[in-house]
Amino acid sequence: MNRDTSNLLARRERVLSPSYRLFYEQPVHAVRAQGCWIEDADGQRYLDAYNNVPVAGHCHPRIVTAMAQQGDVLNTHTRYLTEHPILLAERLLATLPDALGKVILTNSGSEANDLAIRISRMVTGRRGVIVTDCAYHGTSDLLQGMSPVTGLPLGPDVHAITMPLAPEGPEQFAALVGEAIARMEADGIRPAALLVDTIFGSDGAIADPPGFLAGGVDAIRKAGGMFIADEVQPGFGRTGAGMWGFARHGIVPDLVTTGKPMGNGQPVAALVMRDMLALEFARMQRYFNTFGGSSVSCAAALATLDVIEDEGLIANAARIGQRLMAGLAPMIEASPALTGLRGAGLFIGVQTVSGDIAAAIVNAMRRGGVLIGAAGRGNAALKIRPPLPINVTEADHLLESFARALAKVEVSNL
Amino acid sequence: MNRDTSNLLARRERVLSPSYRLFYEQPVHAVRAQGCWIEDADGQRYLDAYNNVPVAGHCHPRIVTAMAQQGDVLNTHTRYLTEHPILLAERLLATLPDALGKVILTNSGSEANDLAIRISRMVTGRRGVIVTDCAYHGTSDLLQGMSPVTGLPLGPDVHAITMPLAPEGPEQFAALVGEAIARMEADGIRPAALLVDTIFGSDGAIADPPGFLAGGVDAIRKAGGMFIADEVQPGFGRTGAGMWGFARHGIVPDLVTTGKPMGNGQPVAALVMRDMLALEFARMQRYFNTFGGSSVSCAAALATLDVIEDEGLIANAARIGQRLMAGLAPMIEASPALTGLRGAGLFIGVQTVSGDIAAAIVNAMRRGGVLIGAAGRGNAALKIRPPLPINVTEADHLLESFARALAKVEVSNL
Repeated sequence: MNRDTSNLLARRERVLSPSYRLFYEQPVHAVRAQGCWIEDADGQRYLDAYNNVPVAGHCHPRIVTAMAQQGDVLNTHTRYLTEHPILLAERLLATLPDALGKVILTNSGSEANDLAIRISRMVTGRRGVIVTDCAYHGTSDLLQGMSPVTGLPLGPDVHAITMPLAPEGPEQFAALVGEAIARMEADGIRPAALLVDTIFGSDGAIADPPGFLAGGVDAIRKAGGMFIADEVQPGFGRTGAGMWGFARHGIVPDLVTTGKPMGNGQPVAALVMRDMLALEFARMQRYFNTFGGSSVSCAAALATLDVIEDEGLIANAARIGQRLMAGLAPMIEASPALTGLRGAGLFIGVQTVSGDIAAAIVNAMRRGGVLIGAAGRGNAALKIRPPLPINVTEADHLLESFARALAKVEVSNL
Repeated sequence: MNRDTSNLLARRERVLSPSYRLFYEQPVHAVRAQGCWIEDADGQRYLDAYNNVPVAGHCHPRIVTAMAQQGDVLNTHTRYLTEHPILLAERLLATLPDALGKVILTNSGSEANDLAIRISRMVTGRRGVIVTDCAYHGTSDLLQGMSPVTGLPLGPDVHAITMPLAPEGPEQFAALVGEAIARMEADGIRPAALLVDTIFGSDGAIADPPGFLAGGVDAIRKAGGMFIADEVQPGFGRTGAGMWGFARHGIVPDLVTTGKPMGNGQPVAALVMRDMLALEFARMQRYFNTFGGSSVSCAAALATLDVIEDEGLIANAARIGQRLMAGLAPMIEASPALTGLRGAGLFIGVQTVSGDIAAAIVNAMRRGGVLIGAAGRGNAALKIRPPLPINVTEADHLLESFARALAKVEVSNL
């Protein structure tokens, strides 16, 4: 570690809350980034195979320019009539099923999920919420109780289903949701919503078989509750199969939340819902979000949508995702440390035998200049989730780095 | 209304949730803004005497440039070691009492307040929260129950004090907080925190006598609770008396939250707290905020701090605030429609006899090209809160517009 880095670490400890955690045994001191590459203070370059926020690639010039141009002209809120939030809502709705007709813009996926829960509870007049057992849905007080992956207890009226890593199909998922509803109702709580990340990112990337989610959606609706698709992870093309993760499951949610990749790094997020829910909610209470829908945030989101479309990033996610899957499959077959391969497009989960093994691979790859992460139960699943413009050469570099790290970890750990 | 505006209004109704509300009988269709001026689609210019978010003036070139330059280089999160969040935390702490030593960065004042409540509850092991009866503290599920100005019921374990518009002093405020503690404890709830906007913005701008807040702070501490200063409204120099609203009251909070003006429009906010609270919280649970502390947001906040300092905006807030107060005082004296003048620096509240009168003045001024708002009980207080660089000519223009609007409203309403 060079001196600048250790000085900066000391300053960081002095002023930032100890809640802050750095990735990797040896943290990455990032000073610049472009496309799928991050450069550290020593000039070492890292292939970023982890970050979904810069969906169009780090520091995409078109998005930076759009923000700067808008910043020069107007950056205001939605109490004045301005074009940007309307344009953005129109563009979002054009990518979504017709049944979803009304948009509220926020600053983070957390704010969008918090509001989605509030609306589903107000409109149904019920309290019960079902999540998966390694779910993560955000930072607010309400959502910490719906994010069991953090190790915190479930909130009041929240029940979790134990998510299988290899679901059998819609019947099994319907049964899991049905059991949670039954437990909830036995406690005298009626179900308001099923809240699911449609790529199950923090559960370790559970994507197949396509359509399995439909069983749970039917079950919650039969019980009078809403289905909320948390698209913070899979949204904006990550799965390589259209814009939204729920589409692979052939379902239409009642509410959809977005976040992380929406502004390629700019804090912007959204809640989209059925018209009737928006009407009922507006009848019952006020909602205003100061920065939500502000002009520069909307300009970033609009430019991000343009880049996803113009650069064919969804098709690229599908193509490179397949290449990565094809390259990983034989390694998983051959290694006693690895037990499964899951995911869709550029959200890939590699199951390892333990959190320690996963951490060892993550840190070995970081030393080799490739950034990935871990998630799921016991942090035993490797999470591979690069910016969408990753190309063939970069994907092959990732696979080589993975193979080398795996070999080292096998030698020293197994 | 021109055709573009009515078309845009129709598009807006189609895609945005009906929760969205526009200001003014005749909405302002904003297309550009600079300094203290907003221009509409017809080319009419409005003096902005309402917006505290663009604290350094709309579209400040130095802040826009800082964001664009950072956006070109790196825009990432706090799981990597980067300089920007550390620099920003250092700069913030340098403006705050020494007892406040640890920072968490968020995207909005709502996220900061939500977290402040969570920390005060976890660390005290108690639930009770005291707010004022027209308080507004944010949009999250938790905070809606602490924002009675929205008309929603108080949340569980939340008690409100009836805030006098002209407090007598610290003893009276101590008694009010003491009564709320007693009510709370009679319900079996122990007090965790007193949460107060230190300029009482949504209560109608209650600033005097300086020091009155100290009584309440003593009372909550004696009862074992924390004092949270919500600086979203008064922070960053608005009161003309230093950076923070609480300083006028000679107190040191346990937790301080910031928001709106912090990035001059960029979604960035912070929670600053005593070291021990940060340590205890980190011991008890994880916290990570994806966009909180991201490089471009920090660059915006750092540039905003630079501009506040280099352009002497706090001194300007004091000087122009006094000029506005001096100009308003005789009008209030003379008018049967107006009953009081409150505030500090460039947060000014003019009490009117009713919400209807306040709305009539607000709309008359808007027709005359000056933007103000209303707040407080029954929305009967006028809220005058321009960007801090407002100059003498602009202030006099505001006063003339106010006088004209008042005369019109007196003729037609009294």
